[in-house]
Amino acid sequence: MTITGEALIGGVSVRGEGAAQRAFNPGTEQQFGEEFNAVSVEQVNQACRLAGAAFDTFRSTSDAARAELLDAIARNIMDLGSELVERAMAETGLPQARLEGERARTCNQLKMFATLLREGSWCDPRIDVALPTRTPPRSDLRFRLIGVGPVAVFGASNFPLAFSVAGGDTASALAAGCPVVVKAHSAHPGTSELVARAVVAAVAQCGLPAGVFALLTGSGSHIGQTLVAHPAIQAVGFTGSRSGGTALMATAAARKQPIPVYAEMSSINPVFLLPEALAGRPDSIAAGFAASLTLGVGQFCTNPGLVLGIEGPGLERFCASAAQALGGVAPGTMLSAGIAGSYQRGVQALAGNAAVETVIATMHSGCKGGAALFRTTAQAFLAQHALSDEVFGPASLVIACRDIDEMIAVAEHLEGQLTATLQMADGDAEAARKLLPVLERKAGRILANGYPTGVEVTSAMVHGGPFPSTSDGRSTSVGTAAIYRFLRAVCYQDLPATLLPPVLRDENPGNTWRRRDGILGQH
Amino acid sequence: MTITGEALIGGVSVRGEGAAQRAFNPGTEQQFGEEFNAVSVEQVNQACRLAGAAFDTFRSTSDAARAELLDAIARNIMDLGSELVERAMAETGLPQARLEGERARTCNQLKMFATLLREGSWCDPRIDVALPTRTPPRSDLRFRLIGVGPVAVFGASNFPLAFSVAGGDTASALAAGCPVVVKAHSAHPGTSELVARAVVAAVAQCGLPAGVFALLTGSGSHIGQTLVAHPAIQAVGFTGSRSGGTALMATAAARKQPIPVYAEMSSINPVFLLPEALAGRPDSIAAGFAASLTLGVGQFCTNPGLVLGIEGPGLERFCASAAQALGGVAPGTMLSAGIAGSYQRGVQALAGNAAVETVIATMHSGCKGGAALFRTTAQAFLAQHALSDEVFGPASLVIACRDIDEMIAVAEHLEGQLTATLQMADGDAEAARKLLPVLERKAGRILANGYPTGVEVTSAMVHGGPFPSTSDGRSTSVGTAAIYRFLRAVCYQDLPATLLPPVLRDENPGNTWRRRDGILGQH
Repeated sequence: MTITGEALIGGVSVRGEGAAQRAFNPGTEQQFGEEFNAVSVEQVNQACRLAGAAFDTFRSTSDAARAELLDAIARNIMDLGSELVERAMAETGLPQARLEGERARTCNQLKMFATLLREGSWCDPRIDVALPTRTPPRSDLRFRLIGVGPVAVFGASNFPLAFSVAGGDTASALAAGCPVVVKAHSAHPGTSELVARAVVAAVAQCGLPAGVFALLTGSGSHIGQTLVAHPAIQAVGFTGSRSGGTALMATAAARKQPIPVYAEMSSINPVFLLPEALAGRPDSIAAGFAASLTLGVGQFCTNPGLVLGIEGPGLERFCASAAQALGGVAPGTMLSAGIAGSYQRGVQALAGNAAVETVIATMHSGCKGGAALFRTTAQAFLAQHALSDEVFGPASLVIACRDIDEMIAVAEHLEGQLTATLQMADGDAEAARKLLPVLERKAGRILANGYPTGVEVTSAMVHGGPFPSTSDGRSTSVGTAAIYRFLRAVCYQDLPATLLPPVLRDENPGNTWRRRDGILGQH
Repeated sequence: MTITGEALIGGVSVRGEGAAQRAFNPGTEQQFGEEFNAVSVEQVNQACRLAGAAFDTFRSTSDAARAELLDAIARNIMDLGSELVERAMAETGLPQARLEGERARTCNQLKMFATLLREGSWCDPRIDVALPTRTPPRSDLRFRLIGVGPVAVFGASNFPLAFSVAGGDTASALAAGCPVVVKAHSAHPGTSELVARAVVAAVAQCGLPAGVFALLTGSGSHIGQTLVAHPAIQAVGFTGSRSGGTALMATAAARKQPIPVYAEMSSINPVFLLPEALAGRPDSIAAGFAASLTLGVGQFCTNPGLVLGIEGPGLERFCASAAQALGGVAPGTMLSAGIAGSYQRGVQALAGNAAVETVIATMHSGCKGGAALFRTTAQAFLAQHALSDEVFGPASLVIACRDIDEMIAVAEHLEGQLTATLQMADGDAEAARKLLPVLERKAGRILANGYPTGVEVTSAMVHGGPFPSTSDGRSTSVGTAAIYRFLRAVCYQDLPATLLPPVLRDENPGNTWRRRDGILGQH
């Protein structure tokens, strides 16, 4: 497939009317390839209008038809073959195996939502039958969830496939019957165009209105702001920085009709080294931690950026062992010059902080980032809010606590997180039991004896958490529950059966799980 | 029980430290009874701190224990006997039968959530078992919904029981394991205190921390603003005016950690008179409409404030018949002098609008409000945004449309609504089919051949809708689905079974419906 640098609006290629920009290869530190022009305000509006016009047709398709669309997108992405992987490698510096894995994950995610649609109960169908002889009589009431409307999606730089053009937000929005307008990330514009062409082809193959999907090209805050402000857009999915996410939240809240924003922003993913585990296996914990910290050059939202342990020989041993492991990891190419620069500044700020000791800081230069480990005391951490800020990359901060109570006090002090991890042995159960209620309030996912990087795409996953890890801690961006972010409830009272959606008619030909008078069953 | 005019914080009576105010009887237009003092900022903060401190204990109670609390609240409310009904009558001007019905509804609502808790699947438990031999291995993942944290509740003036101190938001928040801090509505302070004492007694009877519930007294925006801004508060339930709701939304969005606001604000509940129904039974539709419009002196969120019909003899007959019916309804006592004054101004503005014809406007004086019916053309309605504003009270506006397409254009022009109603006959099916997709986008509940007043408290109800009918159209304030507004998802990865919440352990002693690897079952 040819990359042209164009946007895709209404199912056709259109060149942006604004400034041109080329892709950047962080490995060679060179720009390369085609020019991508920023779309104009009017082009953004056009994509939104088409999405709005396509909504009723798209959401009235059968679950099977939308499942087929998701499957077709997955097939078309695979059909892009090595061109997609190679382009993504050039644009992100990520290695082939990682991108092939991410592609598989992206396609599995699309297929997971197809399976969810075919199962049918995603729309939470409910029927309370009429009770005409009751005093007063009860009407016939039927409930289902429907799509909220067109969704604006802003992809992530660190997952050019799984959290981008056809990533989780797009997959769940399409499953929900919501058209999608994607703002391509300027760090991987060619990857975005290839995937968008796969989506556009699938929309056409399935005979759906072209307004169901659009890709907007280029940089400039006018694109995102116009997109989020457009009246047709009814929800926003975003993965990126805290400043970017909060700017979109402000735009969405200032609309005449405010809309929900699901922004995944900032998380330092604390790891709690409980005493018996730390005493018993400091080296193996350190090895696992170092591997998780440096995976993908530390560029995961779930990167373990904070480690809490009780001061003593175990923690000393953990730090020494982690330093040794991190020292053996070569600096890696980061996703972009901007991310590498931010990482370098973050590491320098920690190294220059009088309350912080540098355990190890490996070399970095240009777009290459090396691992770094720092340590401080709980008291210093509690006193300096800046030490809670995410440093995006392979850096982490060890907090030496005097005892479990101080560890709990630090946990209580933390902002919302995507994950929290316990390293624990049998004898740590009491300490874990004390920490757990705090962690449940602070994080969306709680792990024992694992590492937070690696997010399974499945029914029980939660990738989300209280602010500022996300803008809306009620929701997840990964797993089947992600569909709920793009749904709202509608009740039909005494509507003639012929006007009811099939899933709410008495006969239930699909044997869908429904609640009748509150009772779950395939009835 | 004695009404003292005090707030209830930490399970004990405390007098507010601010200005005093007495209850107002809109029937006699006199103040009466005890003085209620406005709580201070520090008293608000104290209630919030206690709620925050009680959260972990409260949410870790069993479903059965919280069900018992809800049942105990219902019993204690009934035990207040005629004192509660008489006080509410004096404070609201609502008649005895209505308030007894509302009390029954309030208690049934509490019991409905108790039943939901005992069924157990409200927390959407999910288990994806470990796959240790997969490449890469899959961890054990378990998912449930937990309470978001303490909830601030602002009751409604028009439902002093069902949408107030122990109304829907309080019931669903307590069911979810969230402590509740209620700001008493200054239009029914004594009713609020009586119900709050019933709740406080139930909390004590159930051996729960006193911080689980508090009642704040008095007027003044400092109370609401301090409450919503307090860091312990994690969600807000509000029923009231659009200006009040949007002010709370702004406060919640400006917090360091923004929180969700569920504000029910403004709805004009369009009724669509489809041609064949209008031709066939204009008189009976008019009679039902007039009864719905004047029920409770028009003071329902679901009051039919807009009627759309196609110009012609049927619509003329409907207007004449409705005018006759409305002329026979005596003006009723409205809830407060403020509401009666606003209603009078709204009616006068319509009567003085050059594009609007007065079909009938009955007398009103002081706190008494009489019914009013106006009419205008679709073109005038589309041209004047002010004609879409809610006039809270027994007034409605008929829109004469030239044809179905113009009716659909008006529907498309409407803001979000709680309800939309179709009056239809068999021959109207095609028109209904055209309107339905628009109404699904605009409203939370769609009725056929009924009237929107009267909201059933049951599993399939939706009382909510797109902005500005509510601040968050994804949600409902009535029915079992209301519990979702106060829940968020948490995933446990490889957590030892002894640390897992009982509902996620393998053995499933309660036979709770769960998803295992995505499949629903009592497994």
